[in-house]
Amino acid sequence: MAKLSQKDVLRADQFTAADIDLILERAATYEAALDAKRELDELRGKILATLFFEPSTRTRLSFEAAMHRLGGRVLSVSEAKSTSASKGESLHDTIRTVHGYADAIVLRHPEIGAAEIAALATTKPVLNAGDGAGEHPTQSLLDLYTIRNEQGKVDGLTVALVGDLKHGRTVHSLATLLSRFSVSFLFVSPSGLRMPREVVERVQTRGVAFQETDDLGRALREADVVYMTRIQRERFADPAEYDRVKDAYVLTRAALAKAKPSITVMHPLPRVNEIATDVDALPGAAYFRQSANGVPIRMALLALLLS
Amino acid sequence: MAKLSQKDVLRADQFTAADIDLILERAATYEAALDAKRELDELRGKILATLFFEPSTRTRLSFEAAMHRLGGRVLSVSEAKSTSASKGESLHDTIRTVHGYADAIVLRHPEIGAAEIAALATTKPVLNAGDGAGEHPTQSLLDLYTIRNEQGKVDGLTVALVGDLKHGRTVHSLATLLSRFSVSFLFVSPSGLRMPREVVERVQTRGVAFQETDDLGRALREADVVYMTRIQRERFADPAEYDRVKDAYVLTRAALAKAKPSITVMHPLPRVNEIATDVDALPGAAYFRQSANGVPIRMALLALLLS
Amino acid sequence: MAKLSQKDVLRADQFTAADIDLILERAATYEAALDAKRELDELRGKILATLFFEPSTRTRLSFEAAMHRLGGRVLSVSEAKSTSASKGESLHDTIRTVHGYADAIVLRHPEIGAAEIAALATTKPVLNAGDGAGEHPTQSLLDLYTIRNEQGKVDGLTVALVGDLKHGRTVHSLATLLSRFSVSFLFVSPSGLRMPREVVERVQTRGVAFQETDDLGRALREADVVYMTRIQRERFADPAEYDRVKDAYVLTRAALAKAKPSITVMHPLPRVNEIATDVDALPGAAYFRQSANGVPIRMALLALLLS
Repeated sequence: MAKLSQKDVLRADQFTAADIDLILERAATYEAALDAKRELDELRGKILATLFFEPSTRTRLSFEAAMHRLGGRVLSVSEAKSTSASKGESLHDTIRTVHGYADAIVLRHPEIGAAEIAALATTKPVLNAGDGAGEHPTQSLLDLYTIRNEQGKVDGLTVALVGDLKHGRTVHSLATLLSRFSVSFLFVSPSGLRMPREVVERVQTRGVAFQETDDLGRALREADVVYMTRIQRERFADPAEYDRVKDAYVLTRAALAKAKPSITVMHPLPRVNEIATDVDALPGAAYFRQSANGVPIRMALLALLLS
Repeated sequence: MAKLSQKDVLRADQFTAADIDLILERAATYEAALDAKRELDELRGKILATLFFEPSTRTRLSFEAAMHRLGGRVLSVSEAKSTSASKGESLHDTIRTVHGYADAIVLRHPEIGAAEIAALATTKPVLNAGDGAGEHPTQSLLDLYTIRNEQGKVDGLTVALVGDLKHGRTVHSLATLLSRFSVSFLFVSPSGLRMPREVVERVQTRGVAFQETDDLGRALREADVVYMTRIQRERFADPAEYDRVKDAYVLTRAALAKAKPSITVMHPLPRVNEIATDVDALPGAAYFRQSANGVPIRMALLALLLS
Repeated sequence: MAKLSQKDVLRADQFTAADIDLILERAATYEAALDAKRELDELRGKILATLFFEPSTRTRLSFEAAMHRLGGRVLSVSEAKSTSASKGESLHDTIRTVHGYADAIVLRHPEIGAAEIAALATTKPVLNAGDGAGEHPTQSLLDLYTIRNEQGKVDGLTVALVGDLKHGRTVHSLATLLSRFSVSFLFVSPSGLRMPREVVERVQTRGVAFQETDDLGRALREADVVYMTRIQRERFADPAEYDRVKDAYVLTRAALAKAKPSITVMHPLPRVNEIATDVDALPGAAYFRQSANGVPIRMALLALLLS
């Protein structure tokens, strides 16, 4: 039986090339089954615990839907903070306890490294659903899967990552994962929110071409994929600076008129106003398909880890 | 396969006569199956998302029980407010996202019209579980089903709606739905909390007889069905006025002694003190059966919309 | 079909000897099935409602895992306080309503006696998952099961109950349940937190030997089982008194060096610092196995009450 190289899903860069192939291929199989409304039963009798120490309804529902679609069961904790942890229990103890109830654990936690601590506390699979400013590897996998689905390939593409590249966990992980492929990057951000040097160096080490710019218009003319993220007012020391840049990072239908007709528009959601709603109807507006792709990707991960 | 005339359940007045027949008949079949402890599997492999932007444990559990009783699965969000919406996401975007995870969506929302917005955002069925002061159509259907079960018919009955008729979403929807039948209404309320003119006009348009009164005692002597609702102190500008009327709208065993022996007593629950607890043991005290009827009614709706 | 002597699980002392045999034996069967990853289906088509009026994620998940492991379904209310109760509904009415949705009800409530009230409101099984300072009978059963599993027997053992014996619901119920066996007790606590007289008298009435002491070191030399509980700062009128005793009730590897090699260390969890983490690796450190035993014990109870 095909297996992943590790028992857990903790970081976007943990996957071997074989892992990635296996996951994307399996996800495609499951997507076809979902489309055909074929019922699956591979994880019948298995229990997944979703432990969310901070709310993320989208990610929680996506994991839970994936488990249900495979016939498994779910124990759901959306308010984990208000529980034993508040009585002073360590994360290690919480995980060792949940180990006794479930066959795999999805963890969302506000602190970097929480998923690694959890993985050491149990022999059962731990899936990192976001650990603070750290990693969100299943998001990166569904982003990669979406790019391949929308563009039919990954190698050869020019991918623009846009917005707050400094604080965005999503774009850090995605840049890392995509740098395993023959892509070119456009890092598009206000000057104060540029991609962190360690991510840039990782990309460089792997020989991937990249350019940095604050000009979204220029990026749109070159990109095959544009990945929008939100710029939050609170990231700016000077509110006037925020007001100056915010409109420059809103994707409109007019701006897209100058892009390649085949451009794919992505966003990790939720969006506030980074993409005008009249973009939604364009064929390349992939963000809701992207979010739906979370289900087959997470089905693939759960099945590969559990069956 | 029998089908409802619309893909969604949004308003009490959307149903055709054929829809109502279909729903009540199907609910009766399911109630018999539940009583016989027969296991059903029609929605095996299907997922229902229950999105509650305000708490309503009773309604949520009733929908979830209905889905489980048909073999389906549930994604449950009882704290929807604390999620993506709080990050500024529109309801439209939330629904388009959940569309990717589930086969049908139950929505409870504090704003009138929320369910209509949701229904436009997805091709999948949306079931309105209450939109602010707007509609709560599945409640009206289970009320109708209860009346027919308890009295053996609907046509020819005199139905007293009692309490705060001005603000009560439940009684507005029920009056609308019942006015399709040959019933007579007694609208019983303090003068400041009378049935809104638009509801009265809708009833009149359909040629249904009604009387308005503030005299519960008189209504009890004539009614076949008495439907109690709560009068909240905060609805009165003058607290003294509340104190003056509140006891007049409490249903007691003594008051019921003057009613028809076959009277059916209903209440949408939760009750505070509108019905004295010693009424519970009377054969006509139907409110807990009414609440239990939420399960077969919602099973019928889910099955008709999804299978 | 084997049955328990009552329809509900309300108090640790309600069980007959036959009940206890039946529960422990059934739990052992289920534990073997879980170890062998054998899928069970006995409660297929049944619904369990878990109603938590105060949070207890551990207990809730353990009951829900038990129900899922038997093929049943779950309605989960982890925020019961914020619901109908807050609108003024009585517990009796809440339970009569949930009676219409589920086949059994697990109740956690902050008030003593709540489970008894619930049991009177429904003909369906009610399982007390903790009622304030009252009872937590399923915890006592899993504690008993753990002692038997770890030591191979119960009769003849010396059991030390340690910590805040005055306020600890868990140790009251366990002392009551164990006093049906031929055990000896060591009640180990600071002088202000001694075992309540009514529990001591109940133990005496049953002819069970016990000693009271504040010396954990001495207890460790004699005990076959040491059951640690937490001492909370807020239980002390004088904070200086807390600071004086707190370190004396921390179980360390050094302290255990003087214990019997076969000693079993238990704790109801969550632990804060009552047991040093380097104790976890000792073979007798049973607290995580104890917590996992909650699943087969609750499977046994649910199956015996529902099938």
